[in-house]
Amino acid sequence: MTGVFITFEGGDGSGKTTQIELLKSWLEERGHTVVVTREPGGTDLGNELRDIILHRKGFIAPRAEALLYAADRAHHIHTLVAPALERGDVVVQDRYLDSSVAYQGAGRVLDPTEVRDVSLWATENLMPHLTILLDVPADVAKQRQDSDERAYDRLEAEAEDFHQRVRESYQRLADAEPERFVILDGTDSIEEIHHQITQKVATLLS
Amino acid sequence: MTGVFITFEGGDGSGKTTQIELLKSWLEERGHTVVVTREPGGTDLGNELRDIILHRKGFIAPRAEALLYAADRAHHIHTLVAPALERGDVVVQDRYLDSSVAYQGAGRVLDPTEVRDVSLWATENLMPHLTILLDVPADVAKQRQDSDERAYDRLEAEAEDFHQRVRESYQRLADAEPERFVILDGTDSIEEIHHQITQKVATLLS
Repeated sequence: MTGVFITFEGGDGSGKTTQIELLKSWLEERGHTVVVTREPGGTDLGNELRDIILHRKGFIAPRAEALLYAADRAHHIHTLVAPALERGDVVVQDRYLDSSVAYQGAGRVLDPTEVRDVSLWATENLMPHLTILLDVPADVAKQRQDSDERAYDRLEAEAEDFHQRVRESYQRLADAEPERFVILDGTDSIEEIHHQITQKVATLLS
Repeated sequence: MTGVFITFEGGDGSGKTTQIELLKSWLEERGHTVVVTREPGGTDLGNELRDIILHRKGFIAPRAEALLYAADRAHHIHTLVAPALERGDVVVQDRYLDSSVAYQGAGRVLDPTEVRDVSLWATENLMPHLTILLDVPADVAKQRQDSDERAYDRLEAEAEDFHQRVRESYQRLADAEPERFVILDGTDSIEEIHHQITQKVATLLS
């Protein structure tokens, strides 16, 4: 695989969508073919599973939820991401297995190592070259989401202490793999964050 | 858990549905509370996943398919089977993790041991007390299905050599765990098979 795989992580309201669009333009201006995608979702099957995971009413058993994310991931990597990397494209992805570990593992009731192992089996151990973690305090993220007219999905509607545990879990993941992760302060200006991201990506591509 | 967990395995057209109904009546006549259920399906979420797995058009990546079965299984065991076993009921189930190993592992492209491990994680290692394998030659199973007016689902529509590999995979699973499995000749009469099943179940319950 000759392509480059970059993932964005962080809580809802951390600014991932904005930064992904800016990075896409920056890469395209430099002649790269860019595939922007996301999990859950990113494929037709994935969008059906995303609907179930995020919008279904009623209880979903924790292990079932983790396995649905992994199923989405397996299909997404196999049919979309791996072929793009084989073509030599740059894949810029909103959420990957670190989300599952942070949300399902630390945030809920499952063993984070086991959740990670399921995702690694799903993807045949495909890891990103670079993971950009946009870190924002829970109250800032909530303010940003409240100003958005879209209704909360199942995870967004969780209590504030849940989001705080997710944030701490992300920080532990980044600390454990400093060569893959870069943590950026999501309360900095959009331009400043974009500048820091392009510096990292330029290094990666050179 | 004070209940008893009995699973039925075998190819489509092996007579599982008929034998499950007869066993249910036999158990209820003897005063047992019986829960009859199936995988995939068995819960509302499971039926949505069953629709995706069995009836969705288009390619599903092999690992995604295995993970969808495991997600269905995790939710089904957590919300329906484990509570019934805790109440002391007899659960009679059409297909369980042996189906995944036989169909996804041996019949398709994945490592059977890995497929089994994913299912064991999904169910927190819950194993049946007794598994009844109804064994029929692939051509007999096909004849029975052809006489049924229902359209084939995705797995039933596979080629005959696929069904032969599944049959051989089932036989290997039964050979590896002779204390849990009983193999019955699915070409025997309905009455004869029912008699053999009730003998095994009577021993288990006593």
